[in-house]
Amino acid sequence: MARTTEGAAETVFAGQRAAEGLAVGRLLVERAAAAEVARAAASPAEEGRAFEQALERARGQIAALVETADALGAEILEFQEALLEDDELLDPVRAAIDAGQSAAAAWIGHLDGEIETYRAGDDEYLSARAEDLADLQQRVLRALVAAGEAAGGETQPEGAILVSADLTPSRFLELDWSRLAGAAIAGGSPTSHVSILARARGVPLIVGLEADPALLPAGRLAVLDAEAARLIVEPSSATLDAVETRLARRAEESSVIAELIGRPARTAAGETVELLINVDEPGLLDSLSPESCDGIGLARTEFLFHGGRLPDEEAQRAVYRRLLDWAGGRPVTIRTLDAGGDKPIPGVTPEDEANPFLGVRGLRLSLRHPELLRVQLRALARAGADRPLKVMVPMVTAPAEFERARALFDAVLRELADEGLEHGRPPLGMMVEVPAAALTAERFACDFYSIGSNDLVQYTTACARDNPALAELADPASPAVVELIARTVAAAGRRGVEASLCGDMASDPRLVPVLLECGLRRLSVAPAQVGRVKLAIRRYGGAPE
Amino acid sequence: MARTTEGAAETVFAGQRAAEGLAVGRLLVERAAAAEVARAAASPAEEGRAFEQALERARGQIAALVETADALGAEILEFQEALLEDDELLDPVRAAIDAGQSAAAAWIGHLDGEIETYRAGDDEYLSARAEDLADLQQRVLRALVAAGEAAGGETQPEGAILVSADLTPSRFLELDWSRLAGAAIAGGSPTSHVSILARARGVPLIVGLEADPALLPAGRLAVLDAEAARLIVEPSSATLDAVETRLARRAEESSVIAELIGRPARTAAGETVELLINVDEPGLLDSLSPESCDGIGLARTEFLFHGGRLPDEEAQRAVYRRLLDWAGGRPVTIRTLDAGGDKPIPGVTPEDEANPFLGVRGLRLSLRHPELLRVQLRALARAGADRPLKVMVPMVTAPAEFERARALFDAVLRELADEGLEHGRPPLGMMVEVPAAALTAERFACDFYSIGSNDLVQYTTACARDNPALAELADPASPAVVELIARTVAAAGRRGVEASLCGDMASDPRLVPVLLECGLRRLSVAPAQVGRVKLAIRRYGGAPE
Repeated sequence: MARTTEGAAETVFAGQRAAEGLAVGRLLVERAAAAEVARAAASPAEEGRAFEQALERARGQIAALVETADALGAEILEFQEALLEDDELLDPVRAAIDAGQSAAAAWIGHLDGEIETYRAGDDEYLSARAEDLADLQQRVLRALVAAGEAAGGETQPEGAILVSADLTPSRFLELDWSRLAGAAIAGGSPTSHVSILARARGVPLIVGLEADPALLPAGRLAVLDAEAARLIVEPSSATLDAVETRLARRAEESSVIAELIGRPARTAAGETVELLINVDEPGLLDSLSPESCDGIGLARTEFLFHGGRLPDEEAQRAVYRRLLDWAGGRPVTIRTLDAGGDKPIPGVTPEDEANPFLGVRGLRLSLRHPELLRVQLRALARAGADRPLKVMVPMVTAPAEFERARALFDAVLRELADEGLEHGRPPLGMMVEVPAAALTAERFACDFYSIGSNDLVQYTTACARDNPALAELADPASPAVVELIARTVAAAGRRGVEASLCGDMASDPRLVPVLLECGLRRLSVAPAQVGRVKLAIRRYGGAPE
Repeated sequence: MARTTEGAAETVFAGQRAAEGLAVGRLLVERAAAAEVARAAASPAEEGRAFEQALERARGQIAALVETADALGAEILEFQEALLEDDELLDPVRAAIDAGQSAAAAWIGHLDGEIETYRAGDDEYLSARAEDLADLQQRVLRALVAAGEAAGGETQPEGAILVSADLTPSRFLELDWSRLAGAAIAGGSPTSHVSILARARGVPLIVGLEADPALLPAGRLAVLDAEAARLIVEPSSATLDAVETRLARRAEESSVIAELIGRPARTAAGETVELLINVDEPGLLDSLSPESCDGIGLARTEFLFHGGRLPDEEAQRAVYRRLLDWAGGRPVTIRTLDAGGDKPIPGVTPEDEANPFLGVRGLRLSLRHPELLRVQLRALARAGADRPLKVMVPMVTAPAEFERARALFDAVLRELADEGLEHGRPPLGMMVEVPAAALTAERFACDFYSIGSNDLVQYTTACARDNPALAELADPASPAVVELIARTVAAAGRRGVEASLCGDMASDPRLVPVLLECGLRRLSVAPAQVGRVKLAIRRYGGAPE
């Protein structure tokens, strides 16, 4: 909701933080192409020709984008390239044009239906595909509208803040972010492709902006505060002063960070802290240097699940090897499938749970599908031959559950030995994210502990982590959460095994001192946060500023 | 699922426990009347006459049932009496009969639609009304079918176990339970009216039986094990022996319980334990003697919410006075509205929560609707004039939340004083059901603590309490839960205030020693469990059996 600050002309619009950052710039308002095509159809032949030309133009644009994109960008565009060759998608549009519709109307109509179908399910894979279709829909529409104009050649005003109803991944990739300060969009979610891209590129982005971008005053000054998830239009001089101070501080920090990034993380007292990274999708690694971190503390494997099934053992092994190869001898911790909760997989996760976060998820689910877990453990053990791999299981609640996972892993290792297949014997650890597990950590015969702070906060405070109405109550720094973390670390110490933390808490520089105070000396963070966390560690135990 | 035990002919059907008990008897299979009315329509005039006669017969039956029923039964039948006079409900049926449908088909068709409408919402009140409509549908159908026969006069075989697809509340009330051993039905839920009635009457009942009752062998021997929620058809001699042993033990216990029920709860060492009862609906109190307990430890107020709103201050005060009057000077603890979670209230609780148990519920919700909480607190303070009333708030997570509730209560007390209205100053306590609250109990400036074990177990183990797939993992006796309970009791001790426990744990005689071991000396239990819990307390600290 817009809020006008008393005594000033500025207007504040709230949104959700997708990629952090802070910028001041003039508003660049982008309108969707869909709004510009309300015209009557020409003859079917002409419309058909215009449609094929638009497709061709879109193919050329995407091919050019793939050419210049990094691996993550290329991966995201891959499906759209395939769609542009898919007659099952295109023929119904051609038929509608033959029947007298305009190319634009036929294209919008057919794709709207397809997008709806993909969005209807709860599947992450399918909703990513809906995002791809919407992206392609916009691109082809732009190509239709701009049929007469020359392609490319757009210039963006230096340092502007882009505001628009939505921002598709391919549009993100074709914009020149060296000229733009960031973006605020009404659509999207922090988990959408465009948010992933923005985080990877370090482009400040607010999604879910509570404003109609078309009504914002183009060309006027604004503050994009992606940290506080606020767009402040026509900021007061007081606001601008405060932002300038923050920007100056950030610039100063940046130079310190640039110095720290290649060095090991050390506290002011000179104590070393192992700083690892979280990896959601291996595609992210291509733009990262392993030199900046001490390895991978959490590699998720949910991304493997496409179209309702996991890849076979051999394909999984290749993915796990890729992670280990990237790390080049640094330790890599891979987590077995953590489906369920907010990550449903059709046909695997239960469909009728009233409270999926309190349902059959993580290890609970894997133990109900031992065939999936078995293949994953085999692929992991094989990938870990002569490599510093660790394996961990998510959502462990009771020691008996962990024992079942251990027994399955032992059986897999025996099988591999019997089959004469080369393999390692990776340590088997557990995620500590259920309060019961934190309270009784010492009772688990695991080889290491990895605290998942997002879920631990969620259950300890009984606040769903995706419910913005409860954000204040779900305080990660609350004494209850801090006690559970400290107890887990102490239990690990008594048992003589490692403890680390891989949730969002570790990526938040303000919370790093709290974690170090709990005795943690091993943190796994979002790749983009490595520098800032190193700085927070460097300041720990030093003179107060 | 049916399971045939190896080496024996017995078949075991699982279900859900609605009212506990154990019995051996022959199967009495009851078929629904709906199956017997597939006949062609006579003339509209004849069908119309038959319909009016059936209505008249149903009116007579229900009036007779109300006559003999206790207050709870009468309350449940009240709405059906009104329906039988409601032309808005009956006229469309009459019109369908005039149009040529048979009376049965017209009645079934119209009521099916009405029932569907009531069931569509999530509202507890509406779904109770759907249950009433289904009950009436069956009753009028039976009256239509039995038009030629004399009413009443059915005899039930002594000690039989009733099995049927469903059992309506009015049918429950007209059966002679002194002749029947109990029932197992395929429909129903533990919270439905018939389950409430069965618990109040002490009739063993299994709902959700995983069997088609029509296919069960009528007249054959069966074991109704409502404790384990199992119906065992044609039990083996080993099963029968085990059941006989359990029955003998229960009989022995019953005689001890009969002796204990009127006396204060005392451990073997002679220590007194305050034993209070939980009250879901005040209607239950009419069949209970206050002499058997030390007061009301938890009176819920969700039952007040009908049709989307709370009664006004005066009406609420009358209900609270009724509870206090019943208790006759014994303490009564009333909980403010605990909506949300599995108790949605349309227009008040958020509708789009992906995980309502981790959502805006309990005090979180009340603080977002201070106008509801204010009226409730006013009515409570007024009802508590010169009475031993305590007030508690549910789902407290952080001290700041409790402080907001305290501030609102203080404001209400000042208002009442300003208005010159007679009122008390009831102590304000908090439910401890969120792990964060248990871990930091000492930080809350509350006047007493009441541990809600159902939610505490749910959050501590991250297992939804209504998810049967996780029942084993959601172990109330797990060391983590026990520690949180003991810590809360210890915190109360240090602060010099009372602690009690009012969740299902206290009603389970097997868990009572665990709770006493935690230091609890104040338990609030389901009324039907008072005797058994007194026995469990009596045995605590005594010689092992």
